[in-house]
Amino acid sequence: MTTDSLKELDKRHKQFVDDRNWQQHQSPKNLTMALTVEVGELVEHFMWLSREESWKIEEKKKDAVAEELADCLIYLTRISGELGIDLVAAAHEKCERNERKYPVEEFQEGYRRPHEYKDKDKY
Amino acid sequence: MTTDSLKELDKRHKQFVDDRNWQQHQSPKNLTMALTVEVGELVEHFMWLSREESWKIEEKKKDAVAEELADCLIYLTRISGELGIDLVAAAHEKCERNERKYPVEEFQEGYRRPHEYKDKDKY
Amino acid sequence: MTTDSLKELDKRHKQFVDDRNWQQHQSPKNLTMALTVEVGELVEHFMWLSREESWKIEEKKKDAVAEELADCLIYLTRISGELGIDLVAAAHEKCERNERKYPVEEFQEGYRRPHEYKDKDKY
Amino acid sequence: MTTDSLKELDKRHKQFVDDRNWQQHQSPKNLTMALTVEVGELVEHFMWLSREESWKIEEKKKDAVAEELADCLIYLTRISGELGIDLVAAAHEKCERNERKYPVEEFQEGYRRPHEYKDKDKY
Repeated sequence: MTTDSLKELDKRHKQFVDDRNWQQHQSPKNLTMALTVEVGELVEHFMWLSREESWKIEEKKKDAVAEELADCLIYLTRISGELGIDLVAAAHEKCERNERKYPVEEFQEGYRRPHEYKDKDKY
Repeated sequence: MTTDSLKELDKRHKQFVDDRNWQQHQSPKNLTMALTVEVGELVEHFMWLSREESWKIEEKKKDAVAEELADCLIYLTRISGELGIDLVAAAHEKCERNERKYPVEEFQEGYRRPHEYKDKDKY
Repeated sequence: MTTDSLKELDKRHKQFVDDRNWQQHQSPKNLTMALTVEVGELVEHFMWLSREESWKIEEKKKDAVAEELADCLIYLTRISGELGIDLVAAAHEKCERNERKYPVEEFQEGYRRPHEYKDKDKY
Repeated sequence: MTTDSLKELDKRHKQFVDDRNWQQHQSPKNLTMALTVEVGELVEHFMWLSREESWKIEEKKKDAVAEELADCLIYLTRISGELGIDLVAAAHEKCERNERKYPVEEFQEGYRRPHEYKDKDKY
């Protein structure tokens, strides 16, 4: 039975890696490259779609997308595992920083995108 | 109080997005691009390091890496959220497929890397 | 005076690298990571834009985009240089393969995108 | 007969695109995604290799790598073409900026990598 826990997921994948003598190749450096590859495969599903089409992909394609997302998550947890980083805690800390960085009152009218606020003096 | 749950994380980030009128920009297509950007920022920390150095990064750099990993996780959960994909379940399914694809007995001697098995007839 | 030649460009960048004792770090492996980083920076300029907006970026942003494209080209030529690959010749060979793979008569009616032809039996 | 010219390459690829009614999909936004995909495919060839191995790939693999590099170059020139950017000129300008940014006298002793100079106050 599986839960929503990333620690359980990484434990499982780490065992898979150790059982195959791959530990030596799983440096954070190499794992970031593996993540790059999976993100490329994910992007491939969306590159020629319109914004609207990207929400309405058919079931077969959704399964393929889910598999790429899964690969990305596995490598993210592996990198975090190798470096002793608590990934979900880090994500909540980042949410807090974002909530402060983009004050909600700045985005109440119209449609100001993140980069139009953050980079407003840049371009 | 935070737990290890990705559903809680995505709920939080989705609220952050909705509060700022960004929902319309959060198409799966755009979110895969945002993920690409964050992965690039992650890779930047490791590109000139040796394999060994990539395991031993100093604390300040580790914090910066944790922030990039966090951004990646946030976008991964957002893509999954927009498409109605259970990301952790998908990752466990992928683990199962991997466990079947790379039989443990094929990797007991020497150091055969994934691509040397998978692509053994390719090159 | 500069020409349109990539060989000249790579010679110049190679000299820059050698003058700074960086040659040892310019393995094809590391250079593909550097390319990943630059592509991420390029994508950042376009991720929240609509298709139409992406054609009409203002001059200041275009300069920033040109700089990212330049970085990508520099790393592409460096990887090719390290591996002894003639990049432009390889691109023309790829064009030839593409011209055969996607026969022009298959795309005369309607708007069939590459993946709708290539993957027509996939989804 | 082909030369080392990127303008000629882009003209050829643009013709290929126009002949297949794909022009509408070739927004700079979409093309940056296509570039991401190709870079992922390139990285895949190097992710589990050591630095040294990445210089000594066998001929068959080198052909596959050349094809990925070619795809990257094609999309780089397409993005530049769509935006009216002179890619090689931009690369030479970037070389000039780099030459000023990393003064040669700062790198004469030992092995100081770019990020150790640029980020020296960062970590």
